[in-house]
Amino acid sequence: MKIEKIAEILNEKFVGEGETEIFGAASLENARTGEISFVEKAEFSESAQNTKASCLIIPENFNAPLPCSYFKVKNPKIAFAKIAEILHQPKKQSGIHSTAQIVKTAKIGKEVFIGAFSVIGENTEIGDNTQIFENVKIAENTKIGADCFIFPNVVIYENVSIGNNVKLHAGVVVGADGFGFVRDAERYIKFPQIGSVVIEDEVEIGANSCIDRGALGETRIGKGTKIDNLVQIGHNVQIGKRVVIAAQTGISGSTIIEDDCVIGGQVGFGDHATVKSGAIIGSKAGILPGKIVRQGVWWGVPVQPLDEYKRQNAYVKSLPRMREEIKVLKKQVAALEVKKTAKK
Amino acid sequence: MKIEKIAEILNEKFVGEGETEIFGAASLENARTGEISFVEKAEFSESAQNTKASCLIIPENFNAPLPCSYFKVKNPKIAFAKIAEILHQPKKQSGIHSTAQIVKTAKIGKEVFIGAFSVIGENTEIGDNTQIFENVKIAENTKIGADCFIFPNVVIYENVSIGNNVKLHAGVVVGADGFGFVRDAERYIKFPQIGSVVIEDEVEIGANSCIDRGALGETRIGKGTKIDNLVQIGHNVQIGKRVVIAAQTGISGSTIIEDDCVIGGQVGFGDHATVKSGAIIGSKAGILPGKIVRQGVWWGVPVQPLDEYKRQNAYVKSLPRMREEIKVLKKQVAALEVKKTAKK
Amino acid sequence: MKIEKIAEILNEKFVGEGETEIFGAASLENARTGEISFVEKAEFSESAQNTKASCLIIPENFNAPLPCSYFKVKNPKIAFAKIAEILHQPKKQSGIHSTAQIVKTAKIGKEVFIGAFSVIGENTEIGDNTQIFENVKIAENTKIGADCFIFPNVVIYENVSIGNNVKLHAGVVVGADGFGFVRDAERYIKFPQIGSVVIEDEVEIGANSCIDRGALGETRIGKGTKIDNLVQIGHNVQIGKRVVIAAQTGISGSTIIEDDCVIGGQVGFGDHATVKSGAIIGSKAGILPGKIVRQGVWWGVPVQPLDEYKRQNAYVKSLPRMREEIKVLKKQVAALEVKKTAKK
Repeated sequence: MKIEKIAEILNEKFVGEGETEIFGAASLENARTGEISFVEKAEFSESAQNTKASCLIIPENFNAPLPCSYFKVKNPKIAFAKIAEILHQPKKQSGIHSTAQIVKTAKIGKEVFIGAFSVIGENTEIGDNTQIFENVKIAENTKIGADCFIFPNVVIYENVSIGNNVKLHAGVVVGADGFGFVRDAERYIKFPQIGSVVIEDEVEIGANSCIDRGALGETRIGKGTKIDNLVQIGHNVQIGKRVVIAAQTGISGSTIIEDDCVIGGQVGFGDHATVKSGAIIGSKAGILPGKIVRQGVWWGVPVQPLDEYKRQNAYVKSLPRMREEIKVLKKQVAALEVKKTAKK
Repeated sequence: MKIEKIAEILNEKFVGEGETEIFGAASLENARTGEISFVEKAEFSESAQNTKASCLIIPENFNAPLPCSYFKVKNPKIAFAKIAEILHQPKKQSGIHSTAQIVKTAKIGKEVFIGAFSVIGENTEIGDNTQIFENVKIAENTKIGADCFIFPNVVIYENVSIGNNVKLHAGVVVGADGFGFVRDAERYIKFPQIGSVVIEDEVEIGANSCIDRGALGETRIGKGTKIDNLVQIGHNVQIGKRVVIAAQTGISGSTIIEDDCVIGGQVGFGDHATVKSGAIIGSKAGILPGKIVRQGVWWGVPVQPLDEYKRQNAYVKSLPRMREEIKVLKKQVAALEVKKTAKK
Repeated sequence: MKIEKIAEILNEKFVGEGETEIFGAASLENARTGEISFVEKAEFSESAQNTKASCLIIPENFNAPLPCSYFKVKNPKIAFAKIAEILHQPKKQSGIHSTAQIVKTAKIGKEVFIGAFSVIGENTEIGDNTQIFENVKIAENTKIGADCFIFPNVVIYENVSIGNNVKLHAGVVVGADGFGFVRDAERYIKFPQIGSVVIEDEVEIGANSCIDRGALGETRIGKGTKIDNLVQIGHNVQIGKRVVIAAQTGISGSTIIEDDCVIGGQVGFGDHATVKSGAIIGSKAGILPGKIVRQGVWWGVPVQPLDEYKRQNAYVKSLPRMREEIKVLKKQVAALEVKKTAKK
């Protein structure tokens, strides 16, 4: 891709050679000739001046001279990510491996790739260009859209619906039974886990994460939501659009996370909680069952507004001083009382 | 199943048409003709009156008129779960897929299903009616009982013993090495991890959970215990009967959880702890190594009785007031001292 | 192995029969004739005296008479682990299963085992004696050293480099995309995740753990490091040599853990943190982004030195007493003030 083409995509001006071919994206330190890189902050000017990249994207307040062509833009990281996304599009294969097991009732789209030892169940649908890697199991009545990447060893149970441009990384499990049991006298009876899972377009789910099916209704992951590795999503959870959830977070049954929330790692949600649109929840926070979390930044166990959390921590840190003050007061009061008594 | 048959199973009376056929269970909102649903609380009478279900199970204090046949019972949720369990029995297949690798020394019971690309090791035994899905690896000398469901991509290492009616969801790993190393001068030496795992009847284990083998002895999961997704059970852990463990909880080596305990999600247990029968431990709690947790409800890090935890939290919340009170006292005492001095 | 051979390996003297053959290691309670066991502390003398083992390794302060040959050594557990490691070497197979898919460009070493349904990608290299179990996917341009164990259902993405004597337990995922997205107006753009993963010699990684690839650079796990199950290692994380990380811990992007650290279970690290060589971090601790953790023992959320953590907890526990003291002071001061006023 020529630099002048990049200019067109970013809708930004450049300084330097528009004809230069760019074939890859790299960090400032690792970039070689023909690669593009970016400078996040003007302070990194030394690394920038020593780069071997053929093109840089730099912030507006960057003023040092540069050894290559460059774009000066408002947000270099976003611009770089946009170009890198195009330069490093994941390779697509097509064709069905001879060992893959595809039943006749499966509807397979155009240019689909299905790798070795994958199993596609009855009445499934796989959309155009979708890439299903090796050792994947897709059970019956499941529908997968176009342009998806289903990495090796993913398991999708029956009656699951997956949109377009979805990425499921290795080991993801979609549609296993939710965790619902009712205690009878001498044993746990399974509450029926016969609902479904809907994963909307442009969702990405990290390795070994689990999305349980609804008990009677559905579990839903909204469009453009990004989920990290080893995350647990319980039955009937409803996650909105463009939500980000970091690794090892767990969300219990029927909890609702509205659009545009950002959830840190190792957060735990009780069941039937609601997180309002745009809320930010810090790593390791704990949300009690039924809790409603409003917009804002939240922290701690149980979760509270970040300001309150900080204030409370400061109070706890001041405990030694408080105890010392009480000790002094006790002495002073005792002294005052003694004088009083002495006078009588 | 006719309503009169349901009456027989529940040993309850009904009002309405005993001849009506019920083919499925659903929520009040989603139920269609021919389905049964339940009303958890009398407050939900509006949803109940608008349901399209052909039969409802309602609580004893429910008195609104209903558009369908119904059972009035003490615990509608349990009754519903019992009937749903029968109506929605997981389908069973039988036969061994042509691609599955079964060695001659394996003993395979009657009506067993083994899916594509599964591998069954030397001297294994698989009980009658057990369903082994695709891409499963069962290593040598492992014994699996009757009527089990081993979902896709499960891995069971050697010398593991699994009872009847056990469900292992996709991605479960049973019998990997425990985490035991001893530090010599310049490296960690592996402490032998050559014990076994015993999983008793009616255990269910959620997707991507891990049950490590014993170091020298055995790791044991007791009858009827239910374990959620992404749970870690360390070497030599002993879990009793009818224990419930929610997602992402981790239990370190040699810890004992006695019968009928309920453990929340993301709880962490140090090694060699003991949880006494019937204890309830809240989500995100932390139990120190060697700790003995008595019956009762426990919370926090380190774990303490819920009452104490709440009281302590209330004290922490009252810190701003305490600091204010100290400030006032200091002023008052200073004033008293000044007067004293002035008088002299 | 004869006892006199064990003496040679341990470089220790024994009491008893040097000719006795030892074929296995076991616990004191389970050991049978022909097995070796160990006594961790002199207090366990009763179990030791009742053992059926043919040889024991006992601590220096153990003086009770024994029914079998024995070694008296400084650290019985280390000596036992050394011998058990030799007695219980994991079996090695060789040969490539007829169903495994190996492309022509793959370079496979001598005495390699590749199990059924495993897939080895273009331009991979597999070192001598390495054991690749069933249903494993190794993507293109990946290099695996000699004497490794890659257990069933492991997935290794492209461009990963793995040293010698590495063990990856079932379900491990190496090289999936890191979790990096930048928010543009209406969607998240993926920040390029095109770096690599380097796993050095003698690393062991537990079941279902995930090691993400670097965004632009590399993620590295140093020589001799041991990682438990369900651990998450983010992009560009650098872990030193001989680090131990317990189950369910998560490490965010670009964090550095230096050599010889010991990290408990369920610990969470923010991004760009640094843990200095030899630091010990207790289970469930939380490390803020960018934090530098010095050598020492650390605990809590956010992490603090163990001493301070304990002191702070003690202060919190003393809150009821403090509040009582304030109450008393208030009464006393009120009384003093009343007298004062009365006198006027």
